[in-house]
Amino acid sequence: MAEALQVPTHLTVENADFSRALGFIDGAVVPLAEAKIPVRDLGLMYADMTYDVVHVWQGGFFRLEDHLDRFFASLSGLRLDPGMTREAMRRLLADLVRRSGLPDALVYFACTRGMAVPGSRDPTLSQNRFFATVTPLVLRGQPAEMQRGQNAMLVRDVARIPASAVNPVWKNTHWGDFIRAAFLAKDEGFDVPILCATDGAVAEAPGFNVVAVIDGALLSPEAGVLEGISCRSMFELAAELGIPARYGRLMPEQLAAAQEAFLTATSCGLFPVTRLDGAPIGAGVPGPVTTRLLNTYYARKNAGWHITPLSSIPPP
Amino acid sequence: MAEALQVPTHLTVENADFSRALGFIDGAVVPLAEAKIPVRDLGLMYADMTYDVVHVWQGGFFRLEDHLDRFFASLSGLRLDPGMTREAMRRLLADLVRRSGLPDALVYFACTRGMAVPGSRDPTLSQNRFFATVTPLVLRGQPAEMQRGQNAMLVRDVARIPASAVNPVWKNTHWGDFIRAAFLAKDEGFDVPILCATDGAVAEAPGFNVVAVIDGALLSPEAGVLEGISCRSMFELAAELGIPARYGRLMPEQLAAAQEAFLTATSCGLFPVTRLDGAPIGAGVPGPVTTRLLNTYYARKNAGWHITPLSSIPPP
Repeated sequence: MAEALQVPTHLTVENADFSRALGFIDGAVVPLAEAKIPVRDLGLMYADMTYDVVHVWQGGFFRLEDHLDRFFASLSGLRLDPGMTREAMRRLLADLVRRSGLPDALVYFACTRGMAVPGSRDPTLSQNRFFATVTPLVLRGQPAEMQRGQNAMLVRDVARIPASAVNPVWKNTHWGDFIRAAFLAKDEGFDVPILCATDGAVAEAPGFNVVAVIDGALLSPEAGVLEGISCRSMFELAAELGIPARYGRLMPEQLAAAQEAFLTATSCGLFPVTRLDGAPIGAGVPGPVTTRLLNTYYARKNAGWHITPLSSIPPP
Repeated sequence: MAEALQVPTHLTVENADFSRALGFIDGAVVPLAEAKIPVRDLGLMYADMTYDVVHVWQGGFFRLEDHLDRFFASLSGLRLDPGMTREAMRRLLADLVRRSGLPDALVYFACTRGMAVPGSRDPTLSQNRFFATVTPLVLRGQPAEMQRGQNAMLVRDVARIPASAVNPVWKNTHWGDFIRAAFLAKDEGFDVPILCATDGAVAEAPGFNVVAVIDGALLSPEAGVLEGISCRSMFELAAELGIPARYGRLMPEQLAAAQEAFLTATSCGLFPVTRLDGAPIGAGVPGPVTTRLLNTYYARKNAGWHITPLSSIPPP
C-alpha cells in the first residue's frame, strides 16, 4: 500500500489565535490592527518595496538565514535601506515573535521606499520604512484538501510579468498578473492558476513555485520566477532521498504529461496538483514522490532541520 | 521671433501650503498625515488596487468626468467596488477639496482590495477600500526648467511591463520597471527615463505619455500604455490648432529624429523633451508646436475649458 500523506491538523483558521498578532512599525510594537502605513508611502502608491515571509515552527525560525539572504539581496537590488543591520533585524523579528507568544507563526517583513519629498520625484531622497508583522501560522491544505490536490488552470490569457520588466528574484508586490489570473481561474471553477512566461514556458502560480515530476525527477522553471525557498527545501530533501532534481525549462505539455506535480510555498511546504485544466496529472491523486517529500519535510522540520530556536537569538 | 513658453510661476513647492492637505479614509476626513492604511491591506501587500489623479484649477476640476470614466473602467476591469456611486464619489471629492480651501490642488483617489479574510486567498471575499487625498498643486516645470527641457534616457535594460501581463489601461501601481529605469537614468545623469515595450517600440515614461512631433504631426504610442488624459488634451488642442495628431507605433529612431518631443502628465500638462541620450531633439530647445500647445493649454484652462467649478457640485 502506498505511503499516506501525513500533515499536521492543528494549524487551522479555527485554532488560530489572531488576537496575538502583532506589528512592528515606525519603531513601535503594536497590535496588528494598529499597524498602519501612510497612504502617501511610495510602497503603496507605486509598489516601491520588497518583502519576505519566514515561518516559525514549534518555537524556531525555519531557514531564517535563507530568508534574510533573499531579503537583503532584494533590498540591495531595489536600492532600499531598512535602516538597521542584519543582526538587528534578526533580533527584532525574534523579539516580535516572542512577544506574540505564538509557537507557530508567519513573519512578514518589508521595506518600502517611504514618503516622497514634496515636489520631488527623486527616490533617493526618501527615508525608507521597515515594518514587520507576526500572525498565527495557518497551514494551507488540511489532509483532505492535500489528498484531493489542486485543480490548476494553465492560464493562456495572462502572462507572468517578464524579468526584463521587473526582476522576480527581488521579491516584489507586482501581483496584478497573478490576481487577474486567479479571478479567471475562479471563474472557471479551478482552484489556482498557473501562469506562463511571455515565451510560453511554465512560470509560477501566485506565491508558489511549480514543480513537475518527469521520469522520476523533479523539474522546476529556472528563469523568470522567484527563487523559492520552499522549492529549495524540496530539492534538498530530494537529494537526501536519491530523487534527481533540476531547474530548467518546463513547457505546458510537459506539465500536463507529468507523473506528478506540486506547488511549493512557505504556507504549505508543498501542495499537490492533481489536475490540470480538468484532466488528471498522473493518477489524479498525490503521487509517491510528492507524498514522500511532504512527509519527509514535516518529519525533518519536527526534528529541527533548518530550525533556529527563538531562544538562541538575543533580545534587541 | 518664436513664441515664448508661458507657464504659471506661482504654483511652486515654496508657495504650497501643505498644512491644508487632507485625506478621506474609512469614512472620515483627516489631516493628510493621519490618512493611513493597514499594512495587511492587499493594496499594499500585492499592489491590488487602482487609482487616479485629477487636478483642480482655480476652483474647478479639470476633466473630472474623464478621470471618473477611467477610474470606473479600472474598477470594473480589476473587479473592485468602491462602495459608492459615481455621484457620491464626485460629491465626496468636491467636498474634500472645498474643506482644504486649496484653489489649485491634486486629488488622488484610490480603491484597494482591502483585507484578506483570515485563512482565505479568495479576493472576492474582501471588502474593498476607497480613499482619497488632496494636496496643493505643485507644477512640474517652472519656466526655466521648461525652457531647458528634459534630457531623457532611452532605457534599453528595462522593458515596460507588457499588456499581456498587466493591462496598463486599468491604471495601476505596478511601477517597478519605471522605478528601476529612473534609477538607471539618474545614475547616468539624465532627467527621466523613457521605456520601450518588450517588442522594442517606445512605450511610456514614469507617469508620462510620450509624444513626438514628426513631419509637423503628433505621434504617440497607441498600445501598451496608459490612456493619458493630458495626452488627450494635447490632441484636442492640436485639432483646434490644425496640427495633425495620431496614436501609432513610435520607434526609438523616430523619436531620436523627431522635430520635437514632449511628455504629458496631469502635473505639468506637457514637459518638453529637448535631448535624448544626450543628443538634441530638433534644435535642442522647446519647438514651436510644443510651445504653442502648452501656451494654448493654459490659456484655454484659464478660460474654463473642461473645468467643472467646485461650486457646481452639491455637498455629499
